[in-house]
Amino acid sequence: MMKIYDLEAFPNPARVRIALAEKNATDKVEFVEVDVMGGEHRTPEFLAKNPGGTVPVLELDDGTTISECTAITEYIDHAFEGPSLSGKTPKERAVIHMMQRRAESKLLDAVAAYFHHATPGLGPDIETYQNREWGEKQKGKALEGMRYFDKVLGNQPFVAGDDFSMADITTFAGLAFADFAKIDVPEDCTNLVAWRERVAARPSIAG
Amino acid sequence: MMKIYDLEAFPNPARVRIALAEKNATDKVEFVEVDVMGGEHRTPEFLAKNPGGTVPVLELDDGTTISECTAITEYIDHAFEGPSLSGKTPKERAVIHMMQRRAESKLLDAVAAYFHHATPGLGPDIETYQNREWGEKQKGKALEGMRYFDKVLGNQPFVAGDDFSMADITTFAGLAFADFAKIDVPEDCTNLVAWRERVAARPSIAG
Repeated sequence: MMKIYDLEAFPNPARVRIALAEKNATDKVEFVEVDVMGGEHRTPEFLAKNPGGTVPVLELDDGTTISECTAITEYIDHAFEGPSLSGKTPKERAVIHMMQRRAESKLLDAVAAYFHHATPGLGPDIETYQNREWGEKQKGKALEGMRYFDKVLGNQPFVAGDDFSMADITTFAGLAFADFAKIDVPEDCTNLVAWRERVAARPSIAG
Repeated sequence: MMKIYDLEAFPNPARVRIALAEKNATDKVEFVEVDVMGGEHRTPEFLAKNPGGTVPVLELDDGTTISECTAITEYIDHAFEGPSLSGKTPKERAVIHMMQRRAESKLLDAVAAYFHHATPGLGPDIETYQNREWGEKQKGKALEGMRYFDKVLGNQPFVAGDDFSMADITTFAGLAFADFAKIDVPEDCTNLVAWRERVAARPSIAG
């Protein structure tokens, strides 16, 4: 059985768990908890699975290990039946991958940089390099990102167009991380807030 | 005819031009030069095509604009015949997308951050925010990235395995950017240097 090494409450693991639930494939995977707070992600054993030291990591039955959420989601989307999360036509694939990358760089990764650089983050044992000015700059980028997605969602029901996709999952995880890092969604981002309520009600998230 | 807005000598535009050449599709696209040094990428007209203000941007015949190199490459790979650049099976797709992302984060994006933050970059009119400490840190990350890919290429002929893929293109563009930014490949990275010579000899690059 495939394994996913992760930590349930973390934002990137949440992306993969939602993708699995959307494909009705959660029970096709064994989850193995990684003690990130205890530094397990920096042990030689874990770095052999993912030299980047991040969770989640997907381990296939043949021992191949896949990190990076977009890559794991590509696997899940193509290995299991159900509605497509990454698009079917060349145009759909391009638009979804573009919005997926924007959801990372404009929101989730910006929030992460703020959290790890301009707050105590995961504590001094884990946050061994911090650049506060960079972190604060990234908070501004995250807020700009929220305004960008609010505008996008004023014109279409989902982040990449008419259908739910992996770009919605990433944007949703980015907002969850923003909550945790105490970056508030600007009050006038009403499209973003309404979209978030709709996505939160999906069975893959609401359970 | 599809259009690509770019600037030929820049590293990310090179990624898309190599992908097109690998698919024998260069003549299927009209290239439109963007005057990045003159700030054209920050005009309202260009930001309407790509709110991120980066090149390249692919414009489809129906007016849809696609930015982010992975997304553009997904389009090219699925719209044109020829050997796959992004993989066919779920496992191939996952491994290639993982290595593509690593080539960006560990190498190309790290070099870019060094160039834009710790050197004069594109000059004071364009580099309106610089964080030198962050840039220097990213130079170290780029060097670590070179050592990582050197190790990978000691075990397999291409970045994502037995076959050439978009991850090779991104790694190649990352090294070209490193040359430009004056980050030397460590001399002991002999696998990386040998791979680079092989890739540079491909018709898509050597012409």
